[in-house]
Amino acid sequence: MKNIENYLRKHHGRFVRELCEYLRFPSVSADARYAKGMSGCAHWLAEHCRKIGLDAELCRTKGNPVVIARTPQRARNGKPHYLVYGHYDVQPPEPLEMWKSPPFQPRIIGQSLFARGASDNKGQHFAHLKAVEAYLKTGTELPCDLTFIIEGEEEIGSPSLAAFLRKHRQRLCCDAVVISDTTLYGLQYPTLSYGLRGICGLEIILHGPSRDLHSGIFGGSLENPAMALCQLLARLRDARGRITIPGFYDDVCPLSSFERAEYEQHPFDADDYQKSLGVPQLFGEAGFSSLEQRSTRPTFEINGLTSGYQGNGSKTIIPSSARAKVTMRLVPNQTPKKILALTVRHLKAICPPTVRMEITMDNGGEPYLVSPESDMVRAALEALKTAFGCEPLLTREGGSIPIVNQFKHILNADSLLLGLALPDDNAHSPNEKFNLKAFAKGMLMSAWLWQKLSRSREF
Amino acid sequence: MKNIENYLRKHHGRFVRELCEYLRFPSVSADARYAKGMSGCAHWLAEHCRKIGLDAELCRTKGNPVVIARTPQRARNGKPHYLVYGHYDVQPPEPLEMWKSPPFQPRIIGQSLFARGASDNKGQHFAHLKAVEAYLKTGTELPCDLTFIIEGEEEIGSPSLAAFLRKHRQRLCCDAVVISDTTLYGLQYPTLSYGLRGICGLEIILHGPSRDLHSGIFGGSLENPAMALCQLLARLRDARGRITIPGFYDDVCPLSSFERAEYEQHPFDADDYQKSLGVPQLFGEAGFSSLEQRSTRPTFEINGLTSGYQGNGSKTIIPSSARAKVTMRLVPNQTPKKILALTVRHLKAICPPTVRMEITMDNGGEPYLVSPESDMVRAALEALKTAFGCEPLLTREGGSIPIVNQFKHILNADSLLLGLALPDDNAHSPNEKFNLKAFAKGMLMSAWLWQKLSRSREF
Repeated sequence: MKNIENYLRKHHGRFVRELCEYLRFPSVSADARYAKGMSGCAHWLAEHCRKIGLDAELCRTKGNPVVIARTPQRARNGKPHYLVYGHYDVQPPEPLEMWKSPPFQPRIIGQSLFARGASDNKGQHFAHLKAVEAYLKTGTELPCDLTFIIEGEEEIGSPSLAAFLRKHRQRLCCDAVVISDTTLYGLQYPTLSYGLRGICGLEIILHGPSRDLHSGIFGGSLENPAMALCQLLARLRDARGRITIPGFYDDVCPLSSFERAEYEQHPFDADDYQKSLGVPQLFGEAGFSSLEQRSTRPTFEINGLTSGYQGNGSKTIIPSSARAKVTMRLVPNQTPKKILALTVRHLKAICPPTVRMEITMDNGGEPYLVSPESDMVRAALEALKTAFGCEPLLTREGGSIPIVNQFKHILNADSLLLGLALPDDNAHSPNEKFNLKAFAKGMLMSAWLWQKLSRSREF
Repeated sequence: MKNIENYLRKHHGRFVRELCEYLRFPSVSADARYAKGMSGCAHWLAEHCRKIGLDAELCRTKGNPVVIARTPQRARNGKPHYLVYGHYDVQPPEPLEMWKSPPFQPRIIGQSLFARGASDNKGQHFAHLKAVEAYLKTGTELPCDLTFIIEGEEEIGSPSLAAFLRKHRQRLCCDAVVISDTTLYGLQYPTLSYGLRGICGLEIILHGPSRDLHSGIFGGSLENPAMALCQLLARLRDARGRITIPGFYDDVCPLSSFERAEYEQHPFDADDYQKSLGVPQLFGEAGFSSLEQRSTRPTFEINGLTSGYQGNGSKTIIPSSARAKVTMRLVPNQTPKKILALTVRHLKAICPPTVRMEITMDNGGEPYLVSPESDMVRAALEALKTAFGCEPLLTREGGSIPIVNQFKHILNADSLLLGLALPDDNAHSPNEKFNLKAFAKGMLMSAWLWQKLSRSREF
């Protein structure tokens, strides 16, 4: 590994310049005006993979092409095979006036490389590419085979990925997927995310009178749908922050003592957290820490409320309807299907007969969990520790990354989430950046990862 | 009275033609494009009052002029003095495409006279004018003095009326005000409204995080302001339809047994009512009939709810705030000031510490009540009975008519609400109409009213 470490150190300046070149492509998938930037970026990436020494291919999909790049001679001698997932498309740069320098003209200030896509996700998967380059260019034997899948539609929901994985299932058959597209707590806190919450959604409409009614002439003699909605939703969460839908928690897998102990290691200051949110007081399910609440516990969140008159001044009406948008975050082993069924059954049971209820459902995605005590996770933690020089943290993510479930369902492969973005890297916001130390540590971590992962399989 | 009745019968056709002439003026106060229609209408009306034999004057205000028309020699011999209030301005006619004939080209079909302003309010006060004409033109002595106040700003909230009443307080000093600007149940159910609900308003904003937050990353660890709002509002009404704000009902004057007996006389079919509203089931405060609920009981109505994302699809956020617009209808002897104070105190007491509450208040108007057993009301009921040939109903209105409180506070005069509009006369809607039988009965009622009212004062 000495050779590799030396190579990475020696060529760091060039790697940064190459990353800047990559970042100059305005590869915005959400906006057709950037089609040229998308196409240019995909071709550049495939060509760059070839330069590194990978067999690279631009694979067509119904949408934007996927870059597949694999280590030369695919192992036939039983070497493990890992996928590295990334995406070359980026979020739209708007609002442009909020950027301190143009989003597609990379600029370095201190250790920060500013550009759209710097951390989400070009910089992160580029670190993995450079680690492989180090193996290939120093003639060091990789202990595994690697296939990079770098898609161009992540920021628009990866609509072509599932079909792509199904079509190429055989060549993508692997032992695990490595994804660096999440956040680490800090450079002193390298982080492995071993779980994700799932999600499902509901839209609830309560219909009252056939039209908005005069609240003076009619008020008092019929249900107000807005009040009915408030009373309906209010009953779904108790004073201790528990969701009251019968059966809601039945399938929730409790945190192991190992996990709780891990969570206690996390750097977290409740006062700072409260201030950063701007709330007068924190609130969540009793019996769990804020960190646990936001990543390991299911939620019922109202995302939107609509009823009646919302303009200036007042309009004295009884609204004809009231509507709520709701999403629930799910944790292992809840499923969207069962939770939606329980929720709808409960809503029907408690909806007053004075209104008519209409519900639409969105199945969303399942939660994800890989055992934090598995050999694979242990190996990845070792790689993090070696590269960053400090104890890594284990965490679950509160959000949902649907592609992880696609890898699980289609390829039967677990994912290792090894984020290299800092919490203040402004993903999806103006002045997105990537920390060049995180870049360097990321390359080192990737180099070590293949050693540790491959060795873990031997036992 | 024979002479008068004959006069009214004989000239009915001309009265209808004159009313049509009056209705041809597009006297829309809300829209500056109709300024000419407003001015033409005011002048025509003042001139018409003079033709009838009244001393008419067009009085300036800060807004549109008020037509004052009084019976010739103002009584110095102790005759009672009554005001008749009306308004020559009308609602905007839009949406024009919904009218079956142009709104300012009166059209008669059967007994219905279609035109904007036909029942609200030109036709109604015109009936009173024609009754006075009958007295004056037949040389029948009026048992009282009358002053018509016909303003041009009712449909925009009568902004100039209070100042006008204050300025002319002395000449407007009177024994009572007669207003025909409400609804009667039907031609077989002449109606006297002896009460109105008051109103006050609140806007409640609950502030949570300083910006919309990602419901995956943060959800579970902080209060959702939309849920907090639902839980806050939900607690304000119990399962029996009672408002739970402490002290809310303290000043509510219970219905007398006389009033409840009267209410039982009203024609009302709960099934028809439910169907007309389009609700699956009626709902209101337990222990009261629908009619009582909507006119004699106070309410707490949510007029609008706003929070978070309201567009198509979903947006997985914890909204930074949630907002409700609320109005409360008040009944004697509640006051807006006290009810607002009680409500705000209660909201502060039950608002969770996890959100910051912002409240704005709107004082609205006080409820109004004149004793349904007073001599004045009895006299008016006799007039209704004589004119319509059947037993009149006594009712309270659920809505609020602020001008009635201005008459009470500035002139210390009670109002008699003797509506001539039918429930289906489409006030404020396309195809507004006025029933010509109601017009005829209204003239007769007015003629009798002065006899009965003046006589009632003698005892």
